[in-house]
Amino acid sequence: MTLVTLDELRDAQKRIAGVAVRTPLMPCPWAETGGATRSVSGKGGGGRREGHKTLHVKPESLQPTGSFKIRGAYNRLSVLTDEERARGVVAQSSGNHAQAIAYAAQRLGIRAVIVMPDTSPAVKVDNTRSFGAEVILVPMHERDTTPADLAAEHGYVWVPPYDDPWIIAGQGTVGLEIAEDATALDLDLRTVLVPVSGGGLISGTAAALKLTLPGVRVVGVEPELAGDAAESFRSGERKVWPFEATHRTIADGLRTNSLGVLPWEHVQAFVDDIITVSEDEIRSAVAVLARRGRLVAEPSGAVTLAAYLHHGDEFDGRSVAAVVSGGNVDPSLLAELLRM
Amino acid sequence: MTLVTLDELRDAQKRIAGVAVRTPLMPCPWAETGGATRSVSGKGGGGRREGHKTLHVKPESLQPTGSFKIRGAYNRLSVLTDEERARGVVAQSSGNHAQAIAYAAQRLGIRAVIVMPDTSPAVKVDNTRSFGAEVILVPMHERDTTPADLAAEHGYVWVPPYDDPWIIAGQGTVGLEIAEDATALDLDLRTVLVPVSGGGLISGTAAALKLTLPGVRVVGVEPELAGDAAESFRSGERKVWPFEATHRTIADGLRTNSLGVLPWEHVQAFVDDIITVSEDEIRSAVAVLARRGRLVAEPSGAVTLAAYLHHGDEFDGRSVAAVVSGGNVDPSLLAELLRM
Repeated sequence: MTLVTLDELRDAQKRIAGVAVRTPLMPCPWAETGGATRSVSGKGGGGRREGHKTLHVKPESLQPTGSFKIRGAYNRLSVLTDEERARGVVAQSSGNHAQAIAYAAQRLGIRAVIVMPDTSPAVKVDNTRSFGAEVILVPMHERDTTPADLAAEHGYVWVPPYDDPWIIAGQGTVGLEIAEDATALDLDLRTVLVPVSGGGLISGTAAALKLTLPGVRVVGVEPELAGDAAESFRSGERKVWPFEATHRTIADGLRTNSLGVLPWEHVQAFVDDIITVSEDEIRSAVAVLARRGRLVAEPSGAVTLAAYLHHGDEFDGRSVAAVVSGGNVDPSLLAELLRM
Repeated sequence: MTLVTLDELRDAQKRIAGVAVRTPLMPCPWAETGGATRSVSGKGGGGRREGHKTLHVKPESLQPTGSFKIRGAYNRLSVLTDEERARGVVAQSSGNHAQAIAYAAQRLGIRAVIVMPDTSPAVKVDNTRSFGAEVILVPMHERDTTPADLAAEHGYVWVPPYDDPWIIAGQGTVGLEIAEDATALDLDLRTVLVPVSGGGLISGTAAALKLTLPGVRVVGVEPELAGDAAESFRSGERKVWPFEATHRTIADGLRTNSLGVLPWEHVQAFVDDIITVSEDEIRSAVAVLARRGRLVAEPSGAVTLAAYLHHGDEFDGRSVAAVVSGGNVDPSLLAELLRM
């Protein structure tokens, strides 16, 4: 299995230009900590001094479908052959991949059928339909078989959410943009925090960063309750958690119960660590992002801020960038968290 | 009195690079209207056909101080002489200009004293202090005299919020960026909606647009309850409303009771229309921006979406860009509006 290359990442960047938003790196002065130094233990052993700590956020919530997923989706659909385009595509998703495929297909004039679990948040189902896709709601245990059945029956091209080189290259444009902006802003960027679910985003992002700014550490962030990737990383073996386990987290975009096969190769090659955050930390981070960062983030997107605020000792905290991967949160949940 | 030039705008753009965020134009597919055509009366008389209508938002809420004001503030402070920098600056503001001056001064190592009315939202006072500025809270009727007194007594350089060519040039970088992005995205941009208060933002933005994309119409948006600029525009004479009148609006950033003198010159030269929105429309627009646009906008920043959603017949609605000028909203108000 081959890893994504810098050429593939740069080609993806050209394809998605003008469709995905070129999101900025937002300085977050409200998240800076002062000059007081203290000793913390680095992963490499021995003590180091931690002083001023700064945060930049990359708000993928600004994308037209509210998450980074449009990057991979549009990159994948852009390289379909004419014959494949004529057949249409089918995808399965708890939400953000669905909206992205629907939006990309609409832009390219391709028919899209989206299979969604019947437990998906209503806002994500409605948004997917609003982009002209046909949505088929199925019980959770049928979500992986239905797309294959539909592909076999109707000839649709199946577009997986993360276990695909084009998807990984598309999501990796997040990493290219971070590297470009960190260079332009002359940041002494040390750590980039990236949410982890199936692993498409962190695979591409880590590849892009290691291939352009090799000194930057890439740290994945996962809910404790869906910590399969963190366990995989520690054990060196790709773990699969029970469906019932990963579905306990409020971060509905991060409930995938294992890394994809191709993402796992990328994680082993390019990722420096994967850490976990608690449900309370995630809830609090959603509220802080709205109150102080003026961003509407979904719980899955806020895990990186949760890590920055509560787990700074687990990574080099001097200049940190956090990918806020999406903003499709139920408005009533956001209102509830703002009142906490 | 001279109008801002394209060279001055471009110089401002160079000065603020890396300090102000280069905010994107965000496509808002949720705000598009379909292909159904209907006849509407254009300002120039006669009917025209209105069809597909698209919106892009420029989210100035992403700025490090949560509003566009950092652009003008940093541009102004960047051109202080060494002697002026040593004296420090004083500014008066109900909030967003205060935070911007404080942040810019901190970045440049300049002392800042900020005079704020004692009715300012707590979040804005706290944020201003967090950037190292000294905040002096005064009764509303003293807010314009205290800065002058402090300048006379201590030698501080007074930095006005909008009636200043450097401030106007700095805010005008919003217009340069819109023009750049509209060109890169190949938008058939017809109308740019800009909030109006003292007029610094619309002056610079309109100048930048007219000097780069002269075919684009620039339309100011104001709360009905603080409609002094709309009345001025219609009458051809700069109107001053009573303090008690303009302070009725929820849009606390737009309560200025007249356009500045220099902004008024720019409005007459470059602005095509100024329209007003109701309080209900503003409240609803804040909620829609959070729910659908995934942006935390303050009421003053949401007036342009209110105009797009409720007053589309008053401007060319084919391809519209709306400046969302800031995001410093009280979290409890946001929670309340999300529950509506």
